[in-house]
Amino acid sequence: MNKNDIIRIGHGSGGRLSRELIETIFVKYFHNPVLARLQDASAIAVENDTLAFTTDSYVIDPIFFPGGDIGKLAISGTVNDLCVSGAIPKYISCGFIIEEGLPISDLEKIASSMAAEAKKAAISIVTGDTKVVKRGQCDKIFINTSGIGLLPAERMHISKGDIIQAGDKIIVTGTLGDHAIAILAARENLSLDDEILSDTASLNAMTEKILNNPSDIRFMRDITRGGLATILTEVCEKKDFGIEISEKNIPVRQSIRAVCELYGFDPLYLANEGKIMMVVKQGKEDTILKMLRSDPLGMKAEVIGEITADHKGKAVMQSIVGGRRMIDMLSGEMLPRIC
Amino acid sequence: MNKNDIIRIGHGSGGRLSRELIETIFVKYFHNPVLARLQDASAIAVENDTLAFTTDSYVIDPIFFPGGDIGKLAISGTVNDLCVSGAIPKYISCGFIIEEGLPISDLEKIASSMAAEAKKAAISIVTGDTKVVKRGQCDKIFINTSGIGLLPAERMHISKGDIIQAGDKIIVTGTLGDHAIAILAARENLSLDDEILSDTASLNAMTEKILNNPSDIRFMRDITRGGLATILTEVCEKKDFGIEISEKNIPVRQSIRAVCELYGFDPLYLANEGKIMMVVKQGKEDTILKMLRSDPLGMKAEVIGEITADHKGKAVMQSIVGGRRMIDMLSGEMLPRIC
Repeated sequence: MNKNDIIRIGHGSGGRLSRELIETIFVKYFHNPVLARLQDASAIAVENDTLAFTTDSYVIDPIFFPGGDIGKLAISGTVNDLCVSGAIPKYISCGFIIEEGLPISDLEKIASSMAAEAKKAAISIVTGDTKVVKRGQCDKIFINTSGIGLLPAERMHISKGDIIQAGDKIIVTGTLGDHAIAILAARENLSLDDEILSDTASLNAMTEKILNNPSDIRFMRDITRGGLATILTEVCEKKDFGIEISEKNIPVRQSIRAVCELYGFDPLYLANEGKIMMVVKQGKEDTILKMLRSDPLGMKAEVIGEITADHKGKAVMQSIVGGRRMIDMLSGEMLPRIC
Repeated sequence: MNKNDIIRIGHGSGGRLSRELIETIFVKYFHNPVLARLQDASAIAVENDTLAFTTDSYVIDPIFFPGGDIGKLAISGTVNDLCVSGAIPKYISCGFIIEEGLPISDLEKIASSMAAEAKKAAISIVTGDTKVVKRGQCDKIFINTSGIGLLPAERMHISKGDIIQAGDKIIVTGTLGDHAIAILAARENLSLDDEILSDTASLNAMTEKILNNPSDIRFMRDITRGGLATILTEVCEKKDFGIEISEKNIPVRQSIRAVCELYGFDPLYLANEGKIMMVVKQGKEDTILKMLRSDPLGMKAEVIGEITADHKGKAVMQSIVGGRRMIDMLSGEMLPRIC
């Protein structure tokens, strides 16, 4: 395969060209004993355990952006869905839908980036699929990744949120809006004083650090599409508790704040790809904050509020200028194809 | 949600509209206890076992076709990848990429079809994801399904093909080309004497019937993109055995044969979505054929050839008109977006 080649319809045929693509690109970068067998279904051994299973499709535009690319995002996004559920990410699948004409060199960059991120997150790419559609029938490349993780019994509560109680503290693990604004800046060719990088990163190493006492971690969710506001709303919706957060404690970079003001965006609704909102046991917040801040991906972690016995079912924010407002889910869409 | 509604960009936002779509369509049709928790990662309990894990994206055009639709195909295609590996399909994920403007009623038909097929195949839809892209950035709807099955230890050889030996018989479970020609006919508005229906179907009930003595089944593969020819080539490539098949024993409907002649297609290269090529132990072929034919999806099963000690690494066909020719993989692509 030549460096200047492009993806042709035949690369999705299931025949010789498909085989060539798999061998020259995917096996080259993703090599591991399970994948190397090139079977349609990969065999993986598991202990008597509970698995976490998740899927996400990535349609981000542009496919290469400051701080990452669609390949890195497709691995870390699915790793994060697993680790915030308390699971230890183990295996991941990759399904590619590629537009005819994509330069093979772009695909190779993406595959290489996926391989590097999978290695970093200690997850194995074990099965895959490639479809090719004609020009104009998709936009460059879409990637689906589905992930399997091992979910220890003592962590089952983390995605359910069923042991959250009044007094628990709410932490976000870093600044909000970096991913969304990096994508916006790339699309609109914004020239900013400091370059804003997407926060795309696999967070499982960091979550493992704080899970020594699993019951201290009441709940976790990665703050992606819909933003922090949507998660806060969902967590307390129809529950016997409320949420109170303080705007002044929410970490947002100055440069992000400036862009938000310009575009009329609220950082609470912006997508992130390397941040978690977590609810932790009252009294444990300082210890957990310290552990988070010791990780390069959690240095800007902050306690932003708490679970309240008041205003059950509602999330409320104390604003910087004074006054309190109710937080609602994102309605409409600010930035399509953000992930 | 109104019956005349269309998909809007906000349905992929992760906010309120996404939630509404999930609740009114996906939860309605796919309801089961695991999915109902609406967590990003679904928890599933497994015994100490080996799992089979597979992924496939479906980009078929048209999305509704004689004999099926993209939803039925997305379930059965992944079920079949699992069952031909010897696994018992258990859990499936659904990742949707939808073009803005798709009628909600189309999505509902697709979801309903997926639910019906999942029920038939006894597989649970446990996790999902929806992305929406602008008009012209994809074509109506693409679906990724990833599947998990349980793979009994005594069936591990089936996808590897490592116990195939000279004398073993080769069976195809029914007529070739039905799916590809049904799609072609739908695209080109061909008017044929008898309507050709796609063979899209979940085959796991049929494969379970013949797996009482797993070692009798040496190998299985579903005959999809690339056709029978590509599988035959792959099975014996670099192996210590060859393959010999007889053209006259290969089941092909008369109407399919006629279309193939018109378009210059070879049925050996056509995609199917409900047929399996299997290698079975010598002497067991009649028993297995009888079991297959007792199933509505295997009524036209035939022994088409055998594994040979001769011409190692090559698949050869005895043609109807006399003479023998070597079989090669599909090169190029005859019908893009066939699945």
